[in-house]
Amino acid sequence: MPAVTNGVAMSAASSPLLFVHGYWHGSWCWSEVIAGVAGLGRPAVAVDLAGHGLRARRPDCLTRIPFDPEALATEVSPVADVDLDQAGDLLVSQIRQLGRGGPVTVVAHSMGGTVLTRVVQQAPALVAHAVYLAALMPASDVTAIDCVRMPENAGELVGPSVRADPAVIGALRLDLTSHDAAYRCQLRNAFFGDVAPAVADAALGLLTPDAPAGIALGATTLTRDGWGSVPRTSITCTRDMVIRPALQQKFITDADTTFPDNPTSVVALDSSHSPFLSMPGRVADIVAERG
Amino acid sequence: MPAVTNGVAMSAASSPLLFVHGYWHGSWCWSEVIAGVAGLGRPAVAVDLAGHGLRARRPDCLTRIPFDPEALATEVSPVADVDLDQAGDLLVSQIRQLGRGGPVTVVAHSMGGTVLTRVVQQAPALVAHAVYLAALMPASDVTAIDCVRMPENAGELVGPSVRADPAVIGALRLDLTSHDAAYRCQLRNAFFGDVAPAVADAALGLLTPDAPAGIALGATTLTRDGWGSVPRTSITCTRDMVIRPALQQKFITDADTTFPDNPTSVVALDSSHSPFLSMPGRVADIVAERG
Repeated sequence: MPAVTNGVAMSAASSPLLFVHGYWHGSWCWSEVIAGVAGLGRPAVAVDLAGHGLRARRPDCLTRIPFDPEALATEVSPVADVDLDQAGDLLVSQIRQLGRGGPVTVVAHSMGGTVLTRVVQQAPALVAHAVYLAALMPASDVTAIDCVRMPENAGELVGPSVRADPAVIGALRLDLTSHDAAYRCQLRNAFFGDVAPAVADAALGLLTPDAPAGIALGATTLTRDGWGSVPRTSITCTRDMVIRPALQQKFITDADTTFPDNPTSVVALDSSHSPFLSMPGRVADIVAERG
Repeated sequence: MPAVTNGVAMSAASSPLLFVHGYWHGSWCWSEVIAGVAGLGRPAVAVDLAGHGLRARRPDCLTRIPFDPEALATEVSPVADVDLDQAGDLLVSQIRQLGRGGPVTVVAHSMGGTVLTRVVQQAPALVAHAVYLAALMPASDVTAIDCVRMPENAGELVGPSVRADPAVIGALRLDLTSHDAAYRCQLRNAFFGDVAPAVADAALGLLTPDAPAGIALGATTLTRDGWGSVPRTSITCTRDMVIRPALQQKFITDADTTFPDNPTSVVALDSSHSPFLSMPGRVADIVAERG
């Protein structure tokens, strides 16, 4: 924990903060949280994951005339080649650029947690603190796709929203151009249940349709000297409809059982999957205090 | 200019950096530049302007069934109420949050420059340095819309891309869902001429359709003790198809004629309108050195 004076975290004593979004999102989702932590004097950066944000690629069928609904279900994704190795290597380079040789606190949301776990295991000296926010925190040798299909994740709303077979197209594809009000409502309930409606609509408009399946298909072997050696915090979301609270708890229990000398620090938020939009100031405070 | 040791700008001697995007863009467009300046040790934040990014609002016609092309030209924009006063007040609050009472260097792109000019005049003590990047830098009492219609801006490509009368709908509306290849090509040539095609496509996908006309319709009276008192840099783009080079030069000439005691510092980039995408490292270096 950084030194605190008059409630303000001291930047000199703290590592820089790097924020990693989840599937379909981009650096844009952290803008309010970053304004908060920067206002507390903490250097911070949000990056785009491989295949996301300014690194996203959209299927041709979305701009082809005439529109072919069948193609949405069958066109191989332009991000089908992105895998966990590539996503991890990119994140390592982003951490090195920010940290200039020193360690960085990395805050990961949702599928970003899978990439963070890979990077912490691969280069533990680069990560001062690993913060998982409503995130995948898979156990050793377990893929993210296996996690989200566990019984503890029953009731999640993203699976039913995917509009193509990931095994066919190499991506988890959302139909973000859909005019179907029920489908759009399901997406809002999945991601942004407690977010102000206008902000939720703006966020839906910034999602990208194809999330590379390869990230969720990769696993990482965790060791005591690797991932097990780095301090970690789990910020759980009690009304999460993407990574259900029981699954978030299972991640913590499994990690603490395997690495009992380095238990997870836990903070619970009464929020949906996206507290960076519904309570960004609270997220900023937690991260600045603990990360 | 901040103290420099071994080529690295010293953050302790420098003001924080706040980045403001232009029409249709959002905080996302600065992610690579921010990674660059943060890697130089400089605290930095990108914000969303009023009516943009997570504050954007999309017209209902984009999600109504069946799609009505006529509505695209006639539906009043949900951001029609956003004006320069509102955009300026929001930017002032964002600067205060980042600066915690101290001055901030603000970097503004394109229409963001109009908001920056308003804010510098309104609260000159909050801005350590005003950096205009391919930006509107209107003279006293001149609106941005009058600027972009000046003869010096002949050949610009955004005007022909607007798909509704701003006087009718209260916004400058781009048809970002268009499947017309020629129209999409025109948008790319306007904004992202020298940007890698895949990145340009990703950026086009993150634009929002309605830019509030009210920002371009507002003017600011500039005074020597206000806007005229703050150091400013203009980073001009020699292949800009939105704010043409002759117009960028006119802004500089007019400002230096009116405020000769505080001349504009000028850097020219051989780039399109979007060097934050085509040469982000160069933009980061210039801003960190001068801002």
